[in-house]
Amino acid sequence: MKRDPSRAQAIEPASTRDGHRRASIGARRSPQAEEAILDAARALLAERGYSGFSIDEVARRAGAGKPTIYRWWPTKADLFIDVYSAEKSAALVPPETGALWSDLLAYTRALWAFWRDTPSGRTFRALIAEAQASTPALVALRDKFLPERLKDVRHMFDEAAARGEIRPEAVPHLLPLYIGFNWYRLLTDQIADDPEDITIMARTLAGTPQ
Amino acid sequence: MKRDPSRAQAIEPASTRDGHRRASIGARRSPQAEEAILDAARALLAERGYSGFSIDEVARRAGAGKPTIYRWWPTKADLFIDVYSAEKSAALVPPETGALWSDLLAYTRALWAFWRDTPSGRTFRALIAEAQASTPALVALRDKFLPERLKDVRHMFDEAAARGEIRPEAVPHLLPLYIGFNWYRLLTDQIADDPEDITIMARTLAGTPQ
Repeated sequence: MKRDPSRAQAIEPASTRDGHRRASIGARRSPQAEEAILDAARALLAERGYSGFSIDEVARRAGAGKPTIYRWWPTKADLFIDVYSAEKSAALVPPETGALWSDLLAYTRALWAFWRDTPSGRTFRALIAEAQASTPALVALRDKFLPERLKDVRHMFDEAAARGEIRPEAVPHLLPLYIGFNWYRLLTDQIADDPEDITIMARTLAGTPQ
Repeated sequence: MKRDPSRAQAIEPASTRDGHRRASIGARRSPQAEEAILDAARALLAERGYSGFSIDEVARRAGAGKPTIYRWWPTKADLFIDVYSAEKSAALVPPETGALWSDLLAYTRALWAFWRDTPSGRTFRALIAEAQASTPALVALRDKFLPERLKDVRHMFDEAAARGEIRPEAVPHLLPLYIGFNWYRLLTDQIADDPEDITIMARTLAGTPQ
């Protein structure tokens, strides 16, 4: 059976970039099987986190063959990325408060709630950990997942630059500070909601007097 | 043989806090064996990183028993912390340039060189990854290792506050931004020396016009 590229494109939106194809020759993806595998992976990450995660266990729970999983998700990182991306948070949209500091405050609170209240926090921690163990995982995280995921964050900073709140040239240097702050808090499990603490971070980053 | 607490204290400076004792009853540590184990662990991390690291292989290379290793370092994180702490960088001292931005520039360049040019970068990445897999590892990283390691960084910010460059109340909020930035760059393998890029980050954080 020949692979149908348009079909594969439809169900593998993120996998065909970077020359990083998921499906091997003759693999047609079944949406039912894909969903069962993603569900099993999400549940396993929620229950056991990174240390208790294994493709063996995902295969067992999903009633799928390991070769099928590896054909569709060559690395654990690819699977983590799809689990994370499938999780939806209605609150996780760029706010339009009119000021960078209050945009950052609202967005950060929503992001941390998303990380706490869904398996997403554990999934993202697993993805970052996996990227320390495997170069393909690092490339998938840094060059594929992050640029896509960070569009909303970039938008907030770009809008602030357009309003004259920050210099446009500062945006590429403020972004890593904001990203790094959130990674550090997540990776050290310090993401309890703390509006005052987040406000001061946001005002510091926005250069707004307090 | 009874454990000698004063001796254990001398060779286990970081391990007896937080109720997290390394040695079990009757374990007297041999400095030679300890050094052989740390050397083997450092070499293995340098060669293979987190994914290729195992206590089995450290034991084999050091000619030590696994029970000995586990008695002295109950978790991989404890071992990673001691490997990291044993690495010395003469350049990694708080600079005294007279301004926060130039202190941060000099310190960050030295830190990244330390991470690049010694096994320390891979060791720290392994430590952070392990902290995502194990709660004792997370506690060891966040509550034991970091507060000790970050004294120099805190000193730079405190000095800047004392000079009136930044408000003292801002220090606890600038620190996580600085730490997070460095973690993000390390964890995504973006720590090539780039004085201009680091300068802009440092000026952004110090609130110094560019």
